[in-house]
This record gives sequence, C-alpha cells and structure tokens, in this order.
Amino acid sequence: MTKVAVLGAGSWGTALAAVLASNDHDCTLWSRRAEQAAEITEKHTNEQYLPGAVLPETLKADHDLAIAVKDASVIVMAVPTKGIREVCRELNGALDRPVLFAHVSKGIEPDTHKRISEVMEEELDRAVCDGIAVLSGPSHAEEVIRNQPTTVTAAAKDMDHARRVQDLFMNQDFRVYTNDDVVGVEIGGALKNVIALAAGVTDGLGFGDNAKAALITRGLAEITRLGVAMGANPLTFSGLSGLGDLIVTCTSVHSRNWRAGNMLGKGKNLEEVLDSMGMVVEGVRTTKAAHQLSVECGVPMPITEALYAVLFEGEKPRDMVDLLMGRTKKHETEDLAGWS
Amino acid sequence: MTKVAVLGAGSWGTALAAVLASNDHDCTLWSRRAEQAAEITEKHTNEQYLPGAVLPETLKADHDLAIAVKDASVIVMAVPTKGIREVCRELNGALDRPVLFAHVSKGIEPDTHKRISEVMEEELDRAVCDGIAVLSGPSHAEEVIRNQPTTVTAAAKDMDHARRVQDLFMNQDFRVYTNDDVVGVEIGGALKNVIALAAGVTDGLGFGDNAKAALITRGLAEITRLGVAMGANPLTFSGLSGLGDLIVTCTSVHSRNWRAGNMLGKGKNLEEVLDSMGMVVEGVRTTKAAHQLSVECGVPMPITEALYAVLFEGEKPRDMVDLLMGRTKKHETEDLAGWS
Repeated sequence: MTKVAVLGAGSWGTALAAVLASNDHDCTLWSRRAEQAAEITEKHTNEQYLPGAVLPETLKADHDLAIAVKDASVIVMAVPTKGIREVCRELNGALDRPVLFAHVSKGIEPDTHKRISEVMEEELDRAVCDGIAVLSGPSHAEEVIRNQPTTVTAAAKDMDHARRVQDLFMNQDFRVYTNDDVVGVEIGGALKNVIALAAGVTDGLGFGDNAKAALITRGLAEITRLGVAMGANPLTFSGLSGLGDLIVTCTSVHSRNWRAGNMLGKGKNLEEVLDSMGMVVEGVRTTKAAHQLSVECGVPMPITEALYAVLFEGEKPRDMVDLLMGRTKKHETEDLAGWS
Repeated sequence: MTKVAVLGAGSWGTALAAVLASNDHDCTLWSRRAEQAAEITEKHTNEQYLPGAVLPETLKADHDLAIAVKDASVIVMAVPTKGIREVCRELNGALDRPVLFAHVSKGIEPDTHKRISEVMEEELDRAVCDGIAVLSGPSHAEEVIRNQPTTVTAAAKDMDHARRVQDLFMNQDFRVYTNDDVVGVEIGGALKNVIALAAGVTDGLGFGDNAKAALITRGLAEITRLGVAMGANPLTFSGLSGLGDLIVTCTSVHSRNWRAGNMLGKGKNLEEVLDSMGMVVEGVRTTKAAHQLSVECGVPMPITEALYAVLFEGEKPRDMVDLLMGRTKKHETEDLAGWS
C-alpha cells in the first residue's frame, strides 16, 4: 500500500484516484472546493464531473493541499495546464521530503512552448521532487470509472519511476505500459488536440470517413516529425499515447476539441465557438504553440498550418481541405524519411 | 487520355471507373453480367452496388472480357481475392500485348498465404504483363462516388509504374501518394480486416472507446511486426494503406468485418454469423492465414492469436479481452524494437 495524493478533482483526476483506491492504496484527492471534497469523502460521488458514478468508499478528499499531500510518497498532478506552475509553488511550501510526481496534463505552455514536465522541473524545488513521470493514453474517464478495459503509458526518464507508476495503477481493467520517452508522450498528448480540432472541421464541412482517416494518418505523421525534431523516439507516436489517444479524440463526439472544430466547419467563427463552449478548448492554444514550434524547428506541418490559418487568419475551413488535397504529388513516406 | 479497363463492377470497381472516366480517360468497366453492363452503359447507374449514384456518361461497361480490355494499356483488377487466378488466366488469352496492372484487392490467398500481386505474377504470362501495382487506402466507395475528399496509396516495385497509376487517378478530390513497398501495402490492406473483426468483438461485448483505441494501436503494431518480417518497410504501416485504412475499417459500422465481429461479441457463434451475413467475410479467412503466417515467421501476434482462438477453437470472446489485458507488464516499444 502506497500513500498517494491526486491533485485536481475533475473527471480524470477523480477516475484515477478511484483506480488507486480500488488497488488498495491510501489515496487522497485534492479539490480546492471544500463542498466538492466533502461530497467525495462522504457521499462517494462527484456529480459535477462523473455524474452517476459511485467512488470507492476508501477514497478520501480534502480541500487543504497540505493535508492532502501529508505523508504521500507519490503525487498525481491532474490540474489544468495553466494551473501547473501555481500548484507546484504551493507544493514547495507544503512538502518536507522528495516525492515522485506523475502528471496527466495534455498541453503545452503558451508563449514558452514548454512541456508540462519541463514546467514542473522549473518550479518544483529539488528537495521535494524525486522525479517526474507522465501518464497518458486513450482513456475517457467515464469509461475508466466503470471498469471498462483501458490501457495507458507511463513514461519517465528514469525507468524505475515509470515502473513505480505502472505498479501503482495496474490492475485487471487498467493496463499500464512503460516508456522512457517523456518528450514523445507529452508531445503526442498535446498535439492530438490540434488534429481533433481539424477532424471536427472536416466533419462539420460534411466530409466523410475517408477524409477523416486521411487527416488522422497525415496528422500523426506531422506530430511525429515535430516530436522527432524535439528529441522524441518515433516509435512512441505509434503507441497508446500517440496513435491510441489520437484515435479516441478524433472519433469521439464527446471530445471538446472535436466539437469546437465541428462548429468551425459549420461556419461559426472562433469567437462564437469559444463563447458557446463556455470553457477552455485546449487545442486552440495548442495550435498556436504547435505552429510556432514548427517554425522554430523547421518542420513542415501542413494540417497545423492550415488550421492555424482558419483559427487566426480568417481562412475559410473549406480552403483548409483544398489546401491539403491540392499539395503536389508525393511519395508517401518522403516526409517521414528522417525517422526511418 | 489513356485507355483503361476496370475488371469487376462491385462498388469499388465502379467507383474507381467513375474516377477514371471523370479524369477524361477512355474507361471500360467489365461485369460478367450482361444486364449489369447494360445498366451502367445505358442508364449510368449501378443500383445494386452504388444505389442512388449517377455515373459519368462517358463510362462504358461490357460483359465480354476480350472487348472490355481491347486496346487498354492499363487494367485495374477489382475482382474478389478468390477470383484473381481465374481472371488472370482468361486475360492471358484475351491480351496480345503487355499492359500495366493495378489491383485493389485486400486479402491473402488461403492455403498458399500468397499476396495478390504474387498470385498475379504467377498466373499472368510475361507477354501480357508490363508490371503490377496495388492501389489501397481509406476509401469507402460510397464517398468516392460522391466526390468526397479521399487519399490512397499507389505502390509498385518499379516507381514508374506507381507514378503512372498516380497520374491516372489523381484529381482534386482523389489524391494519390506513391510508394515502392508492395509487400507493406498489401499486408496492411489484408490484415486490417483481422483487427476490424476484433474491434467488432470488443464493441459487441459492450466495451468502450478506450478498449477499441488500444486494440487498433496494438493491432497496427502486430501487423507491422509481421509485415517487417515479410520484408515490408515499417513506415508504410503508418501511412494511408496501413493506419488510414485500419481506422476507417475499425470505426465504421458499414464494415462487413466489424459487423461480423460485433455479432460474435454479442454471443453468436461463427456459423450463425456467416449464415446471417450471407456473404464472404474476408477477415475470417485472413485471420486463419495471419495466424499461420505469424507461426511461420515467428512473430508474436497476440490479437490475431486471441481472435483465432475465438473463431476456430471455441474460446469465449470475453476471454479474448482478458487475455489481451492480462499480459505481463511490458515496456511499450519492446515488441517494436526490431523495426526502429
């Protein structure tokens, strides 16, 4: 039994805390909101984020960060990308020993273009951080909480850290593979949202499954090109955190990014879409970051470029597809030759 | 303008003939059935296979093979896998000069485990065959006939042949990439049907998108392993004819293989499923061939093995999933290490 704290009681943080508690770990979920923490501890539900689900009775929650992380040897970070720095700073004050971190965020920091583990490395004091892993893969929280079979990847530079995370989460319905390619896992997780937005656009335009399959395929190729330029292992992108997560996100109508793209394809502009969503659409920020990274790294990313032009330069969605279909005749793997 | 004959007036042969005719080629479609040929030439429809679609007025059809291929410099083979040998033999008598062949079949010959182009090489006389290409990718015929954006791969050992096929088909809505990896394109096209069957099984069991995305991801990995052992380029499997076609087939409820798997997952046995389908389910034969190939090549293919046990050894579908989820703890890319 390990003492684990999961920070962030959204749907994914709650589902992961439930997996840990059902694996007989001593797990505390941290929510900033006292009433949500009380609901989880006392009623074993989180109606806002996982309506209808019953959480393990042994799962506790607390709204006080210092109490939530007390004696924990592992901390799972399930807070939104933009909250990472702030929570890390709070943790420096709340922890008196080094712990192992595993984060589950899928984004890139705007402006700095830093990956989440880079942000955490910058912010966390050495005295409180034993290592940083990332857990990622095709995993709707709504399915995990119902014990539907799910497989994910745990990656860390130090494979011992990846294996510790694997041991914590692994059970009959939740299968964890290890990987030492943190860059690849983080880039795959963040950039799939760009392709999901673009897939929503083609669906919104009324195009079919042929176009979407091509978009996902070419999308994975350009994510891989960028990742490799940033030091990732190309094989990681063929795995659960790359291809697997990309498929789930692009083919599910529950994906927020897909829905936003769908509205764009149907003729709404970005402002209208963001207004009507009423929440952050991570893929919009990530498209900007990916566009800038592709320029910095000198990597051609035609889908990202085309989507960037639609989102930020007033290009029409239909032009995005024409642009992709109209490229010059090519050998299929010529863009990929760099990673063979 | 090129004179092209398309052999086989099923949905895919008809849609491809329509693409060629709309590209201003002189295209004749061959159907064994005189009334179907007459319908296509006179009414510009093929109601049995593409209900509601209007074909180009310049597209002709004929039920006489010798007339259909007369003066053609390119022949597109769109007949079912099991009809390939017979049609090749008929062609040896009908042709008096070498022509370029492009086939669009997705299967492996039972018992011999030969790829389609190998079967064609065996059967076609040198005097009638200028070269063999394969055209494959994510392409529902129903979408191609409606000019929905579609991208495919044309592969041939001789890149000039691949480029000739590319030139014939390419237009604004139908984009063709070239590749010189015939083995990879053929193996990807055939084995996707195995994974589509397995995806139907997990859907039929009531599992969710997480399980399906994992299955597609791990499925592509094992197809790639087998393909590489057979001499294919691993990158081909990340392309349109591999990943792209796999996504379309596993996520569309129109896929025959997915539907057959779905019924298996819901508790029917193979005999009942095949009876109720009333037509060939290519993935069933391909599962047997893939199982035998994996043994011959010494390549582990856990999804294929598990599906084989369900289809032919009376294993329960639920056990297939348990088997896949219960494998020992693994590093994500260890199975793939051979092709990095």
